[in-house]
Amino acid sequence: MPVKQASTTGKRADAQRNIAAILDAATECLGRDPAASTSEIAKAAGVGRVTLYGHFPSRAELLDAVFVHAIEGGEEALGQVDLSGDPREALTRLIESSWRLVDRYRSLLIAAQNTLPPGRVRELHADPMARVEKLIERGRKQGAFRKDLPTSWLVGVMHNVMHGAADEINAGRVTPDKAAAYITTTILAAFTPPGDRVPD
Amino acid sequence: MPVKQASTTGKRADAQRNIAAILDAATECLGRDPAASTSEIAKAAGVGRVTLYGHFPSRAELLDAVFVHAIEGGEEALGQVDLSGDPREALTRLIESSWRLVDRYRSLLIAAQNTLPPGRVRELHADPMARVEKLIERGRKQGAFRKDLPTSWLVGVMHNVMHGAADEINAGRVTPDKAAAYITTTILAAFTPPGDRVPD
Repeated sequence: MPVKQASTTGKRADAQRNIAAILDAATECLGRDPAASTSEIAKAAGVGRVTLYGHFPSRAELLDAVFVHAIEGGEEALGQVDLSGDPREALTRLIESSWRLVDRYRSLLIAAQNTLPPGRVRELHADPMARVEKLIERGRKQGAFRKDLPTSWLVGVMHNVMHGAADEINAGRVTPDKAAAYITTTILAAFTPPGDRVPD
Repeated sequence: MPVKQASTTGKRADAQRNIAAILDAATECLGRDPAASTSEIAKAAGVGRVTLYGHFPSRAELLDAVFVHAIEGGEEALGQVDLSGDPREALTRLIESSWRLVDRYRSLLIAAQNTLPPGRVRELHADPMARVEKLIERGRKQGAFRKDLPTSWLVGVMHNVMHGAADEINAGRVTPDKAAAYITTTILAAFTPPGDRVPD
């Protein structure tokens, strides 16, 4: 029954388009205002609220999907970062690229922290954190980073300092142009092996 | 009109007792379960929901009051910490005492982060953070702590690493007995002036 198939395919294509439009609109709306409502998002996506709720039954489910979408986009950028050579320099490059993403999605991050269950924001960062972990492991083997604290702890410190920088900017205590340098300086010192000198 | 006065005083005393009972019950219930409902809290306090809502019109307002109450109690303990002598040793003592409080109120912290507006949890930490700031300023003057990053940034790093440790414990990646040492080790390294050696 080719007609029915064509119609199903057509419906699927419509659904895909709507989902893509909702995710883009949500990224934009939540990027301006972490409290943006699903009505605003539906309007910006050019779909009805019923359509939006058909795909995302709750604001939390929509936010989760938007966050997954943002992380996936970010992963493409982070995959380009050269992580070879001196581990400290590689980490500096990775922090700079990661920070550009965190800074871009600052408002979305607030929305996610206020809406998703505890631990979910970090869970959604599994891929970028695995990349950080691998680099830290290499740096530990080469004596550039400390071995007296667990790697998972160091990964967590980097995550918290970076996301803390977003809070500092939101509160007006730090300007966005300074944040990457502050984060890098702090993390390189925190990762320095005991007895070694903190980088200048 | 002594009779009316006595009655008003009696009502006020009742209200005070109810508020104290609600705050104590909320601290206990939210300490067990960050998602504890106002019905559970009212029941544990031995008051009706109408009484609870009379004093705290929303769960967020109750949580805010519970957090203020917890911080005030914590301030009494932190006020006893000896902050004289070597700034690094003083900071180690302050981290240990602060961590005992963060660890004790871990579940309440999750509840607050999920319920209060962005930045409010940090705002409620104004007093403990002012104490940290004063100690960091002294350490900077004495050359023990770095001066190339703003003091407010260093205060924020300590806040984020400490609260991040609570998340690590909640996620089962760190055991509570190790956390204070991890935090201290990380913070002392992060605060070390550039070119100086990280403490062993």
